[in-house]
Amino acid sequence: MDVSVDCALFGFDGEALKLLLIHQRTAEEGPLSEDELQMALPGDFVNEQESLEDAASRVLHELTGLDNVYLKQFHAFGDPNRVKGLKDQQWLRTFREHPENRVMTVAYFGLVSLHDHIPRASSFAGDAEWTEVGSIPQLAFDHDDISDLALATLREQLESKHIGFEMLPKKFTLRQLQTLHEIVLDKKLDKRNFRKNVKRMDHVVPLGEKEEGVLHKPAQLFTFDANLTHDS
Amino acid sequence: MDVSVDCALFGFDGEALKLLLIHQRTAEEGPLSEDELQMALPGDFVNEQESLEDAASRVLHELTGLDNVYLKQFHAFGDPNRVKGLKDQQWLRTFREHPENRVMTVAYFGLVSLHDHIPRASSFAGDAEWTEVGSIPQLAFDHDDISDLALATLREQLESKHIGFEMLPKKFTLRQLQTLHEIVLDKKLDKRNFRKNVKRMDHVVPLGEKEEGVLHKPAQLFTFDANLTHDS
Repeated sequence: MDVSVDCALFGFDGEALKLLLIHQRTAEEGPLSEDELQMALPGDFVNEQESLEDAASRVLHELTGLDNVYLKQFHAFGDPNRVKGLKDQQWLRTFREHPENRVMTVAYFGLVSLHDHIPRASSFAGDAEWTEVGSIPQLAFDHDDISDLALATLREQLESKHIGFEMLPKKFTLRQLQTLHEIVLDKKLDKRNFRKNVKRMDHVVPLGEKEEGVLHKPAQLFTFDANLTHDS
Repeated sequence: MDVSVDCALFGFDGEALKLLLIHQRTAEEGPLSEDELQMALPGDFVNEQESLEDAASRVLHELTGLDNVYLKQFHAFGDPNRVKGLKDQQWLRTFREHPENRVMTVAYFGLVSLHDHIPRASSFAGDAEWTEVGSIPQLAFDHDDISDLALATLREQLESKHIGFEMLPKKFTLRQLQTLHEIVLDKKLDKRNFRKNVKRMDHVVPLGEKEEGVLHKPAQLFTFDANLTHDS
């Protein structure tokens, strides 16, 4: 059985939650029509002497140039027919030695901030694109299931594991923090309650600085200190 | 790469939390001494046309005769050298065609009640034994890591995912529920606070029945109704 990793890399730019997707392409003017090429999560086979974590880091590094991305394994997908769809087989036949082989994949989700700069993204497999989570097209293989479960896991762990801060700048305002929560959880939050709850979080530390370069009423800046979480 | 599943099956008998372990054995009067044979989690290769879930269910069924065990995937372990230990290789060489192959494993944890009957447990690989969680010896391969993470996951999800009820009889007393929590979380809980918290849980439903066959003060019986959890 072949083993791969696939990565659902989420980015937040202050306004939208985005997922990094690859446009499949073929090496030559290929036998596949535009319609037969799909979008997919970035992924690759695991090399013989490579751990799963290293493989996932490598895929993201090759794709975005980023190192030290927050990256977390969340599920292994092993349906015997997960790469046996017609379009999937058509694409795999253009470059795989054994496109008919069963492939099980270990899925990771990653989190990055797109506030300051948007990582370049390109891959051997095709151009990459940050796609808003609400506008994800039907993906290749079982990548719809993988991205659905990645998003559900992100939602579940946003508060319990304090992972949202990975998608914010080092210094952030409470407005930015609230927007992140609203966008990820896909619901409006009451500003007063939200701020009351944040006040109780030791790990959200006021910096005694204000944001710069804004026209009206600069807001207080905060930072996240993982050492002050109660469960760490 | 070879792909296997391994199962950390936890059982609770009202007093102790136990893990099902296999004593490795060899087919013939083997080349391995008592000292070279270890205990391990039950597991097996995934068959070519079998999903990961089906493989995990099969392993537990073959081992215990049980079907419909609560079984949940929690992590894939893929260290390139995870079966390359000296004792591990000695044992694998007694029955594997390619003992030197890399094996990645997808780990599941399972939960059963040992209150009413203790499932028989035997396997091609050796006799199985329910071992108290506090007395687990050093295990084969990376099974120490797997059982540690299984236990951590059980602790984390005991309350948030209401999975503890899988280890209780269908009808249980609040004393049984509290003991389960104390044993799994490895800490004493205040009886009054515990009962106050349980009262707030819609999914713990009083049956209006009392336990039978006890000498003094029979306690109220409760049951768990998954439909009444708020997150289901």
